[in-house]
Amino acid sequence: MSTSFEQVTTGAIHGSSKAHVDGPDGIRVPIRRIALSNGEHHDVYDTSGPYTDDDARIDLRAGLPALRAGWAGDRREHVTQLASAKAGEITPEMRFVAVREGCAAELVRDEVARGRAVIPVNVNHPESEPMIIGKRFLTKVNANIGNSAVTSSVEEEVDKMVWAIRWGADTVMDLSTGRNIHGTRERILRNSPVPIGTVPIYQALEKVGSDPAELSWELYRDTVIEQCEQGVDYMTVHAGVLLRYVPLTAKRLTGIVSRGGSIMAAWCLAHHAESFLYTHFSELCEILRRYDVTFSLGDGLRPGSISDANDTAQLAELETLGELTRIARAHDVQVMIEGPGHVPMDKIVENVRLEEQWCDEAPFYTLGPLTTDIAPGYDHITSGIGAARIAEAGTAMLCYVTPKEHLGLPNRDDVKTGVITYKIAAHAADLAKGHPHAQKRDDALSQARFEFRWRDQFALSLDPDTAQAFHDETLPAEPAKTAHFCSMCGPRFCSMKITQDVRDYAEANGLTSVEAIEAGMAEKSGEFRDEGGRVDLPISGS
Amino acid sequence: MSTSFEQVTTGAIHGSSKAHVDGPDGIRVPIRRIALSNGEHHDVYDTSGPYTDDDARIDLRAGLPALRAGWAGDRREHVTQLASAKAGEITPEMRFVAVREGCAAELVRDEVARGRAVIPVNVNHPESEPMIIGKRFLTKVNANIGNSAVTSSVEEEVDKMVWAIRWGADTVMDLSTGRNIHGTRERILRNSPVPIGTVPIYQALEKVGSDPAELSWELYRDTVIEQCEQGVDYMTVHAGVLLRYVPLTAKRLTGIVSRGGSIMAAWCLAHHAESFLYTHFSELCEILRRYDVTFSLGDGLRPGSISDANDTAQLAELETLGELTRIARAHDVQVMIEGPGHVPMDKIVENVRLEEQWCDEAPFYTLGPLTTDIAPGYDHITSGIGAARIAEAGTAMLCYVTPKEHLGLPNRDDVKTGVITYKIAAHAADLAKGHPHAQKRDDALSQARFEFRWRDQFALSLDPDTAQAFHDETLPAEPAKTAHFCSMCGPRFCSMKITQDVRDYAEANGLTSVEAIEAGMAEKSGEFRDEGGRVDLPISGS
Repeated sequence: MSTSFEQVTTGAIHGSSKAHVDGPDGIRVPIRRIALSNGEHHDVYDTSGPYTDDDARIDLRAGLPALRAGWAGDRREHVTQLASAKAGEITPEMRFVAVREGCAAELVRDEVARGRAVIPVNVNHPESEPMIIGKRFLTKVNANIGNSAVTSSVEEEVDKMVWAIRWGADTVMDLSTGRNIHGTRERILRNSPVPIGTVPIYQALEKVGSDPAELSWELYRDTVIEQCEQGVDYMTVHAGVLLRYVPLTAKRLTGIVSRGGSIMAAWCLAHHAESFLYTHFSELCEILRRYDVTFSLGDGLRPGSISDANDTAQLAELETLGELTRIARAHDVQVMIEGPGHVPMDKIVENVRLEEQWCDEAPFYTLGPLTTDIAPGYDHITSGIGAARIAEAGTAMLCYVTPKEHLGLPNRDDVKTGVITYKIAAHAADLAKGHPHAQKRDDALSQARFEFRWRDQFALSLDPDTAQAFHDETLPAEPAKTAHFCSMCGPRFCSMKITQDVRDYAEANGLTSVEAIEAGMAEKSGEFRDEGGRVDLPISGS
Repeated sequence: MSTSFEQVTTGAIHGSSKAHVDGPDGIRVPIRRIALSNGEHHDVYDTSGPYTDDDARIDLRAGLPALRAGWAGDRREHVTQLASAKAGEITPEMRFVAVREGCAAELVRDEVARGRAVIPVNVNHPESEPMIIGKRFLTKVNANIGNSAVTSSVEEEVDKMVWAIRWGADTVMDLSTGRNIHGTRERILRNSPVPIGTVPIYQALEKVGSDPAELSWELYRDTVIEQCEQGVDYMTVHAGVLLRYVPLTAKRLTGIVSRGGSIMAAWCLAHHAESFLYTHFSELCEILRRYDVTFSLGDGLRPGSISDANDTAQLAELETLGELTRIARAHDVQVMIEGPGHVPMDKIVENVRLEEQWCDEAPFYTLGPLTTDIAPGYDHITSGIGAARIAEAGTAMLCYVTPKEHLGLPNRDDVKTGVITYKIAAHAADLAKGHPHAQKRDDALSQARFEFRWRDQFALSLDPDTAQAFHDETLPAEPAKTAHFCSMCGPRFCSMKITQDVRDYAEANGLTSVEAIEAGMAEKSGEFRDEGGRVDLPISGS
C-alpha cells in the first residue's frame, strides 16, 4: 500500500467485531457485534464497511469488492427502486435493507413506492451496501467532506470518508470545489460502502472558470452524466431557485447562503432567464432515471440566520420543490427534499409539516437546523439541538454540522465530533418516535452502568475510545475498570451501590412486589440496619 | 497574592470590557460591552463579576466587596424577597434585577409574589449581584463544582467557580463531599458574585462517617444553620423521598441515582421511619426564612435512564414536592423545584406541565435532561438537546452537564464546555419563547458575518477565543481577519459575496421593493452581466 494512504483507519471498533446476518437469497448484512462481559452480545447497525472487518483486506487502489454486482439483473424493465416498488417488486436492495432495519421487506417496498422513503443506489456504485432513508426507518446521518481551493488533498478526503463511516455516517457528500474534483470523487466512490452524494453545479462552475454567467444547460448536463457514470448515488439540484424568487432575498439579513443557490441566482440575474435546472428538469429526470440516481432537491434559499427563518423566499422555493417532486416521481426517479439551515426551535416543526404537505412526504433531509447564531465554534451543538427536534418531527436524514462551521474546513477530529453529535440527535429522535429497536441499546448501556460493568459501558457507547479515556483520566488503574464506584463520588458516596443494596435486601426477603415490600419493611428495617446499611453514592447532580 | 491562587482567570473577555448601567437609587448593574468595528457596541448580560473588570483589584483572601451591604435595612419587617413582594414592596434586589433583565420592577415583584420566580439572596452573602430565576425572564444556567474524596483542592474549586461565571454560569452549586467542606465553601462564597447553592445532606453525612443510619434531624438542622450563617443562597433538600416511595424504585432499571435521594432512602429503610426532612419541614422553613435562603426541592427519585423516565416513583415524589412548596410559601420562603434526569424527548414536556400544575408554577430547575443513555463522553450534548427542549417548555434554570458526566470529575475545560453548551440551550429556548431581547445578539452576529467583519463575529460569540482559534487554524494571517471569504470555499466560492453583489446591484438601480425589482430586472440583467456578475460562494452545506 502506498504511503500516501497510510492514514486510513482500519480495524474493529474497540469492544466489538464485524459479524453478518444472513437474509433471504444469500444476502449477508454486516452488523457490529459488541461482546459483553456477562457472555451476552449486543448487535448494532453498522455503516463502517469492510474497514472494521479484521478479516478484510483493504486496497484503496483496487477499491472495495462489488457487493451488488448482478443484483440489477432481474429487473431490467424497472431499473429504479421506485419503478420496481410501484410494480410491486421487492428488489434485492429492499431485502437487504429490511434485514438491516429489522423490518418486513414489504414495508420497505411500500414506503419506497409511495415516495416516503428512498434507497440511493446508483447502478454504477456496486460497492455500496444498500440503506434506506425515510421517516419510518432509523434516522440517518450524512457527513460532508470535500476539499476547497484553499486546503486539503485527495488522500485526506478518502481518509475523512472512512473515518466518518467508522463513527456512523450513513451517507457521505463530496463537496469538493478545488482541483481534481473528478479524481477525488472516483477514489471516494470506489472505496465507499455508503451512498455518495454530490452537488454537480460545483464541478460545472469549475469548468467555466467560476463565472456563473458562463454556465449552460449543456455543460451542466454533461457534468451530471459524468457523475452518474462514476456512480454518484444522489445529487443536490437547486432547481427551485426561480428567477422571481431572487428579489425576495434582497431584504434578508443574510441573503442567500447556499452555494448552489447563489450560483443559480447569479445565473438567473445575469441572463434574466428562468433557471435552466427548472426549465430542463424533465430531461434531468431522464438522465437520473437511467442510473437510478436519487434527487436531493436543494434548498438554495434556505435561511442563513435566525432572522431569515421561514420567510417568503424559503417557503416559495419549498413549494416549487413539491412541484418538481411530482415530476421526478412521474419519471420513476427517487426524491429527497433538503431543508434549513438556521431556524429557532419554535419554527422547526412548521418546516416539517409544510414539507410533508407540499412535497407529498418525500424524505426530508435537513442541515441542522442551527437554533441560534451566537455560538460559532459550537455549531455542532447549536444545530444538534435543532436536528434532534426536526428528526423527532419527521426528518429522515440529518446533514451533520461540525465545530468548524462558519469558521474553517473540518479536520479529522471535527468530522468525528460532527458525526457523533448527529448520531446522538438521530438516536434521541428515534427514541422519541418510539422506533421499535431504539431503546435496546440505552437499556443495555444503563444496565451495564448500574452493574458497574465499566468495560461494557464503554463498548456500548457511541464512542468507546472517548468514554474510556475520560474515565481513565482520573482513575487509570486497571482495578478501577471493575470498581463499584467512580471518581465523582468516590467509594463511599455511590447511589448505584445503595440502590443495589436496597434491591438485594428486598429480594433476599421476598419483597418482590410493592405491597409485599410495604408490608415487610416495618419488620425488616431493623435487619437492614444491623447488616450495615451503609450508603455510598454516585454519579452526578445532587 | 499567594501562589496557590495563581490560576484564577481575570481580565476582560476578548473583544469586550466591563461597563455599568445606572438604575434608580444609585443601583449600578454590571454589563459586558462588546465594541464593534463599525463604532457601535453591543451590551450583554454579565455574570462574571469583578474578575473581568480591568479596574477591579482581586484579592481572594479578602473576598469581593459587599455590594449589598445595607440593602436589607429598609425591610426588617419582611426579611425575605417573597414576604416583601407579597406586601407589594419593591426591594433594591428587585430593582437591580429589573435593570439587569431590561424589564419593569413591577414585573419582577409580581412574579416573585406569586412564586413563579425566585431571587436567591442569603442576607449573609452580600457579595452577590442579585439575579432572578423564573420563566418570564432569561433562562439561567447553573454550574456544579465541588471536590470529592478522590480528587481536587480548595484552590481548584475556587478557580472553577470564577471560570464558570466567566463563561456565563448564573449560579454555582458547591457539591463538595471530600475533606474541608466548610473551608471550601467559605472561600467560594466570599469570592462569588453569583448565588451559591449546596446540598446540606452531603456535609451532614460526612459528619457521621458516611453512615446514613446515623443521620438525625438535629445534626442535619445544625448543618443547615451552619451553611445559612455562611451565606449559602439556595439549598437542595430531598424532602420528597418518602418511605412509601422507596419500594417504587425496586423494579427500576437504574434504581435511585440521586445522591441525596439514596441517602434518604437508606435512612428511611434503616429506621423504617418517615424522612426527617419531611416530618421537620416546617422547622426547616423557619430556619431558611431567617436568612432568605431559597429551597431547591430535590428530585431524589429522578430517573437515571431512559427506561425509568416519568415513572411512578418520579411522579409520586413530584406531587409531594408540590405539597412542600405550599408549606414553604406559607412561611414566606422562596422555592424552586428540581427536575430530571434522563428523559426521551417525547416525555420532556409532560414533566413541565405536571410540575407547573402540581407545584403551583414554582420555577423548574432541571438537570439536562439527557435524551439518550448511549453517549457517555458527550453527555453535555445528549443533555443540551433535552435542556433546550425543556427550557422552551418553561424550565427557568438549567443545571449543566459536562462531557465527564458518568465518567469522572469535570476539569476546567469540561466546566467551560458544559457552561457554553448550556448557554446555547438557554439562549435557543429564549429565542423560541420570544424573549424580547434575545434575538438582538443573533442579528448582530449574523450581520457581522454577512459583512465579513470577522473580529466582530468573534467578539459577539459565546466563546470568542475558540471562534478565533478555529478560524486561524486554516487562515492565520492577519489579512484573513478582513478577507471577504473563509477557508471553506475560498475567495471565488462565497455566497455571502454574491448576495452582497445582488443587493448592491438592486440598490444602485433603485430596485428597493419586490415589485420594482421584478419590473427592473428584465432591463438591468444585461448590465449586471457586463459588470462581471461573478460568483464566489460560502459557508457550508450545499
